[in-house]
Amino acid sequence: MAALAPVLNDIDRDLDNALERLFAFLRIPSVSTDPAYAGHCREAAQWLEGTLTALGFETGIHETSLHPVVLAHAPKPGTPHVLFYGHYDVQPVDPLNLWETPPFEPRLATNAQGEREIVGRGASDDKGQVMTFIEACRAWKAMDGELPCGVTILIEGAEENGSQGLPEWVAANRDKLGADIVLVCDTSMWNPTTPAITTSLRGLAYFEVKVRCADRDLHSGFFGGAARNPIHILSKIIADLHDADGKVALPGFYEGVRETPTEILEQWKGLDFTAEKFLRPIGLSEPAGERGRMLIELIQSRPACDVNGIIGGYTGEGTKTVIAGEASAKISFRLVDDQDPEVLARTFEAFVRERIPADCSVEVICYKGSRAISLPFDMPELDLARTALAEEWGVPAVTIGAGGSIPIVGDFKRLLDRNTLLIGFGLDDDRIHSPNEKYSLTSFHKGTRSWARILAAFGAVA
Amino acid sequence: MAALAPVLNDIDRDLDNALERLFAFLRIPSVSTDPAYAGHCREAAQWLEGTLTALGFETGIHETSLHPVVLAHAPKPGTPHVLFYGHYDVQPVDPLNLWETPPFEPRLATNAQGEREIVGRGASDDKGQVMTFIEACRAWKAMDGELPCGVTILIEGAEENGSQGLPEWVAANRDKLGADIVLVCDTSMWNPTTPAITTSLRGLAYFEVKVRCADRDLHSGFFGGAARNPIHILSKIIADLHDADGKVALPGFYEGVRETPTEILEQWKGLDFTAEKFLRPIGLSEPAGERGRMLIELIQSRPACDVNGIIGGYTGEGTKTVIAGEASAKISFRLVDDQDPEVLARTFEAFVRERIPADCSVEVICYKGSRAISLPFDMPELDLARTALAEEWGVPAVTIGAGGSIPIVGDFKRLLDRNTLLIGFGLDDDRIHSPNEKYSLTSFHKGTRSWARILAAFGAVA
Repeated sequence: MAALAPVLNDIDRDLDNALERLFAFLRIPSVSTDPAYAGHCREAAQWLEGTLTALGFETGIHETSLHPVVLAHAPKPGTPHVLFYGHYDVQPVDPLNLWETPPFEPRLATNAQGEREIVGRGASDDKGQVMTFIEACRAWKAMDGELPCGVTILIEGAEENGSQGLPEWVAANRDKLGADIVLVCDTSMWNPTTPAITTSLRGLAYFEVKVRCADRDLHSGFFGGAARNPIHILSKIIADLHDADGKVALPGFYEGVRETPTEILEQWKGLDFTAEKFLRPIGLSEPAGERGRMLIELIQSRPACDVNGIIGGYTGEGTKTVIAGEASAKISFRLVDDQDPEVLARTFEAFVRERIPADCSVEVICYKGSRAISLPFDMPELDLARTALAEEWGVPAVTIGAGGSIPIVGDFKRLLDRNTLLIGFGLDDDRIHSPNEKYSLTSFHKGTRSWARILAAFGAVA
Repeated sequence: MAALAPVLNDIDRDLDNALERLFAFLRIPSVSTDPAYAGHCREAAQWLEGTLTALGFETGIHETSLHPVVLAHAPKPGTPHVLFYGHYDVQPVDPLNLWETPPFEPRLATNAQGEREIVGRGASDDKGQVMTFIEACRAWKAMDGELPCGVTILIEGAEENGSQGLPEWVAANRDKLGADIVLVCDTSMWNPTTPAITTSLRGLAYFEVKVRCADRDLHSGFFGGAARNPIHILSKIIADLHDADGKVALPGFYEGVRETPTEILEQWKGLDFTAEKFLRPIGLSEPAGERGRMLIELIQSRPACDVNGIIGGYTGEGTKTVIAGEASAKISFRLVDDQDPEVLARTFEAFVRERIPADCSVEVICYKGSRAISLPFDMPELDLARTALAEEWGVPAVTIGAGGSIPIVGDFKRLLDRNTLLIGFGLDDDRIHSPNEKYSLTSFHKGTRSWARILAAFGAVA
């Protein structure tokens, strides 16, 4: 087995340079959902291509129907082979005015607790996490001349846009993606000192609903009381989505949802996962959603529905006595167990349409959906990774379910018949998708060390 | 009595020049609700000052707490004296992308029916209407050297912003506003060929509701199902504002609302005011609002509630899996009879607050409110104006109630003890407050002729 200690030492010694490399990556505004940033997405792919080529990977940029993917190979015959997946694209930055510093000018800050944080869009989701793996590879190459096991790296550019184009590309390039297991670094730790391996993920169904009434904006003095108001219609639809007990009121919504086994619920009760700890840091204190459920159930094993955005009428300063001609909302569902996003899409559209008056119209846009997934607990790689993480962090890694969705994990199972280990070093307060996104310097540093250990453990199997 | 015929001839002959003067006025982007346009509001006041001074009025610009007012005097001892009121400010122009040509580049267009229209923000509300009166004065001065009766002109700059500062200014300047009656040109005709005098106006109460939950935007994957969503809360409030019969569901809301007398309802039934005629032109066909009421009741004699705008979360292109920290809506009520906007403000705020979860907060901003007003049918000036309008248009003028609010009319009654005749030449499809606002060239031309006749009729009383 190759020597791990010098590799870990090299990671410690090279941390400042590693940060500089991450900052260069973070400066590229690779927002995937806005076509105006398409050039920057390609720029991020090219940056990765250069970085991975310099590390000795055989690297290429491949086109998809949206942004290109980067694929890099470093085979090592006679050892297990891992496929690492991450994404170089980032979320939009609005509301821009809430950022303390420009989102694409990354910086190192010290928080109120004296901890150092990397601040910038993508710091945690997912550029910072991707770079923990790449930096681990760099250290192995630098110290040992090669990696402990075979590695293929696949970095896509449309994860924040539903991974548009990626499943088709994976299906068409199965031959390039041979591996024993998939590794993903896009999830969170259990808490700042306890690593976690995510073994289940909620699915997602995302819709946009545009209600149109009059063919123009109207004066509410003239028409108020006589003309349909699309904001009223949309508000009624949204209000109807939940019943008084916080359950989602779509017909058949809970079909395919299984009750969490009693023994798991008992384990969760022991975790001391309280509203005080989970909600207080974001300024809340009472769990919303389904009544009578534990908080951890609500975010891990129960489905949910949220309106992600709404707009209509006059939204500027002061007053305008207008009845909008049109209003729209973005509405998404988190799915668990066997809930089917395609069935949900039909149910949801019918639910919306039956609430539209005869003289108004509605457009329901259905963005990409994904089913929930859960991974087998008996993967040998799971044990190897838990041991490696425990050695780095000094405490056992927790295996958890995650509330968010990484649809491509289901695609890897379906298209490559491979399981995925989700090991991430994000923290719950990383403000991903929000202003002032950050990634703990400890996450970056110990995350890199963790991957160095995991690669060593996989290589030692040979 | 001075000779009317040459004055009407002069109006006909000078129409092109009158249009040029109106266009110059329309080119000034005097949006009163946005502080960025304050300089342009003053510019509009100065334009009026120059115009009225040139016509021989003793004219001054007076400061208020918001935008200045223009006051112009042309006394004529021994004749009745009228106070004409209008406003030089205009509504914001958004959504700008729906304008076919820039809003402050007025133009003459020909509509699908071959009728000529003045297009631009303010063309109808209220610059075009104001200029009908000023052009009538110009023609009288040009042909007769003086006006038929005494005239004071008061043009304010904050009508679209709740006439902020005007009541205080009127109260402090009663001595400058002596008149027998107030004339306002800011209302509509019954239809394109039938003039109308508006004898009642609905009141207005306008609120903004800002709901705050988490202290930042959240990832809906992480927090969905556990964290409060302010868009859900706001949608529930809005949905609760109306019951299943379209009535406003605020406790006590209908206190002070009187049933329209049977004989008026009978008159209205004869008017052939159908959904086909009123709603079809704007792309609708079914009256919204209270069930079991005639359409004309809904917009003239019944109160109403409309959400004028809503915003929260991600509203850009594509998807973002976010739970907003904050969402807000602008909500207004049209009031009739004895409904009290101050009582309503208390009821509304309580209604909102009892729907806010304990760990969230709400801010309810109360903009200026106004009571509904109705004018006496026995004013002698009403008969004079009806006769003058009938002579110009060839059909009797209809006396109607108007759905919109002109709060200052109540202030003139309260502060100056004077009644107001509301005579306007707008049309229901003028798209005031909307993109592509227009004013019929016929309205402008025959409106000017109408005022020339009305001034003559008032002067003849002497």
